[in-house]
Amino acid sequence: MIKPRTPPGVMELLPREQIAFQRMLDTIRRNYERFGFLPVETPVFELSETLLTKSGGETERQVYFVQSTGALAKEGEGLPELALRFDLTVPLARYVAEHEHELTFPFRRYQIQRVYRGERQQRGRFREFYQCDIDVIGKDALSVRFDAEILAVIHAVFSDLGIGDFTIQLNNRKLMRGFFEAQGVTDGEQQALVLREVDKLDKRGADYVRETLTGEGFGMSAEGVDRILDFVAVRSTGHADALARLDALGQGSDTFNQGLAELREVLELVKALGVPESAYCLNFSIARGLDYYTGTVYETQLDGYPQIGSICSGGRYEDLASHYTKSKLPGVGISIGLTRLFWQLREAGLIAGSDESSVQAMVALMDEGQLAESLDIARRLRAAGINTEVQMESRKLAKQFQYASRAGIRFVVLAGEDELARGVVTVKDLLREQQFDVKREELASSLKVELEQARALAGR
Amino acid sequence: MIKPRTPPGVMELLPREQIAFQRMLDTIRRNYERFGFLPVETPVFELSETLLTKSGGETERQVYFVQSTGALAKEGEGLPELALRFDLTVPLARYVAEHEHELTFPFRRYQIQRVYRGERQQRGRFREFYQCDIDVIGKDALSVRFDAEILAVIHAVFSDLGIGDFTIQLNNRKLMRGFFEAQGVTDGEQQALVLREVDKLDKRGADYVRETLTGEGFGMSAEGVDRILDFVAVRSTGHADALARLDALGQGSDTFNQGLAELREVLELVKALGVPESAYCLNFSIARGLDYYTGTVYETQLDGYPQIGSICSGGRYEDLASHYTKSKLPGVGISIGLTRLFWQLREAGLIAGSDESSVQAMVALMDEGQLAESLDIARRLRAAGINTEVQMESRKLAKQFQYASRAGIRFVVLAGEDELARGVVTVKDLLREQQFDVKREELASSLKVELEQARALAGR
Repeated sequence: MIKPRTPPGVMELLPREQIAFQRMLDTIRRNYERFGFLPVETPVFELSETLLTKSGGETERQVYFVQSTGALAKEGEGLPELALRFDLTVPLARYVAEHEHELTFPFRRYQIQRVYRGERQQRGRFREFYQCDIDVIGKDALSVRFDAEILAVIHAVFSDLGIGDFTIQLNNRKLMRGFFEAQGVTDGEQQALVLREVDKLDKRGADYVRETLTGEGFGMSAEGVDRILDFVAVRSTGHADALARLDALGQGSDTFNQGLAELREVLELVKALGVPESAYCLNFSIARGLDYYTGTVYETQLDGYPQIGSICSGGRYEDLASHYTKSKLPGVGISIGLTRLFWQLREAGLIAGSDESSVQAMVALMDEGQLAESLDIARRLRAAGINTEVQMESRKLAKQFQYASRAGIRFVVLAGEDELARGVVTVKDLLREQQFDVKREELASSLKVELEQARALAGR
Repeated sequence: MIKPRTPPGVMELLPREQIAFQRMLDTIRRNYERFGFLPVETPVFELSETLLTKSGGETERQVYFVQSTGALAKEGEGLPELALRFDLTVPLARYVAEHEHELTFPFRRYQIQRVYRGERQQRGRFREFYQCDIDVIGKDALSVRFDAEILAVIHAVFSDLGIGDFTIQLNNRKLMRGFFEAQGVTDGEQQALVLREVDKLDKRGADYVRETLTGEGFGMSAEGVDRILDFVAVRSTGHADALARLDALGQGSDTFNQGLAELREVLELVKALGVPESAYCLNFSIARGLDYYTGTVYETQLDGYPQIGSICSGGRYEDLASHYTKSKLPGVGISIGLTRLFWQLREAGLIAGSDESSVQAMVALMDEGQLAESLDIARRLRAAGINTEVQMESRKLAKQFQYASRAGIRFVVLAGEDELARGVVTVKDLLREQQFDVKREELASSLKVELEQARALAGR
């Protein structure tokens, strides 16, 4: 006998939680599709040589390799042939390069699949987790207009998820680079080091950061440091304020001016796309992956739960697939790490465990002799699109109600001898705590009306 | 530069095909949910000790093992700790045993995930493929009534998939075992060997099979062989004929009689569930996995494409999780191998590559100055639930139409200066090849009506 257990570092859910998780996945997918993104799925494993081209040592240390029993026996030379994807970006690069001549550009794809990282074991860290990505990939060039559209998608997704107010924070790497260069920090790596120190502002305070940056390692001027600290402290409040803050920056190098112009255009189009101004702001401290993003960058925070960190991030990159093709493929995209987000929301008590089941109605069985009637009632409900379970064996009615209630099933349908004689069924609405009789042929349509109303109220 | 390619033995789809595939997945899921099955997902890898308990050598040879870079360096002793699931049944057994006290029985779950087998490379054989499973698991006992419900689910799924007429073939392992025992073939393994010979009927003919079974290896009597050949040749046509064929079998051993009674009950309830009698039949040659199934067994064939083989199979088993728990957990379930089915349908020309896109409308851009108008139109369409793409950069209108047409987008919305002045937009319906003007505020609702009609016509 073997003790049944999941491997460490995975999130496995009970059905009620899985229903809540699935609803979030469906919501994300629905919104991605609403903006015209096309579905792509790639295999869970890639050839190791494909997966590991780009990676530094860090990524490689976290990769899971895959070997069939046969390959395991033969091994010896080099790395195994296959490895599990550790994100959806490398597979996208491989996909676009491989199918380049069969795709239309700008190529807009969404991809919702699990990825794998051999992380150190730690609470809230997952070795298997969902990523929900969208990207727009251009050939040779891609208008900055898509950067605005992506922001509108983030807004649509998180409005629809209904997990609370959120703010999409916006910055531009060109603006940032231009600004740092003007302060004499011209080297990209040096900029990264300075930013890492600046990131400690919240924890260590301005004095600590000022001391470090003017100290031996960095040797910056006190005025330069203050200008940087002022710059990264910028948060806009509202659309007009965002534009005003851009105006206040004045002019700078070409790179700086280009970043400025891009941010202006993104802001303008985000407004045209109907995103409310409370949902976005400028935040000049946002940098993201410094060696990857080259223009717009996004982070998204739940206003009530800043400690959760960014729940949706991404940005603009110069060239998606330089390892696999000579074509230049600039793009812009975002990723939602849903497994971790779900876990954090659950920890914060924001996932209601009392959500309704995916099962909407249960036909109770009051008497063994009436099973065929029950099955017929269920058939009609299902034909009308109502998810219906039948009690296949008769047991105490109280037990059947208890089951439906615990399972989160809203409607219990009863058709005992008395009801059958009268040509009606009795419906118990466990949500509204009401009971009513309805003609058998009107049952499906009347439950449908109730369910439509609930959907409309929930804004789905 | 690395040549971008997928590993051998996987099916990767272009977006148009992925949309068709996704529609099939959605249809299967919708029907599983309609019958009250609850979603479960398990990690892609299980502990090797969990996964390999049950397996004979065959399964083990096909398993993919998973190792992080760290584990790879340390290896030496024994098998790697993790392995990819090769089906959804072993993970289900582990899941139910692990969460036994948190689940309600009968436990009805659906699971739609990919599984992995290190198969020999061969056309139409996949190393990664989707399985779409449902199972009902009882505790200690499970009524045969669920066997009928499962058949109704198969019927609902394949009716809704709309890939042609199909027949669900039904048999019962108890009936079969009782019958073989009466012919003196009492040993389970011997029954399997006889069945394997009987399976050659179509290819080799009755004479060959008769000769083999009366020959040295088997030594059966000619009459016994004929009785077996008559038995396995039974195919019912219609409900009454099915019952008559059961009656014609007379009585036999307890096992035989029990199988007979179960088949009768399943047939009766299948009818009560409203499954049309053209959709199912008895086929006494169906055996499935002989060491696993113990009662009802199902196979499903496309009437027009018998060469495709069974597209949905399963049956009743005695005990799901004896390796992981002392509880007795009988169950009944089925599996649809969607990757292979999709591949076969495509080979047979049954997947229409000209399916509509998931994108329903495209807002054309006639003039750079009108981008904000385009974005506003798109916003209204999306708010009404219509999947909409915007042309973000103006180019020749003919190019924009060509793009929409190739992508399978049904509606192209035009709002040039003239239309804007008149407060209307022009809609080109590429499906119906019609064009009409509509007031801007009525655009979303009028497209919605068209889309609802198309959905109703398609029976979705």
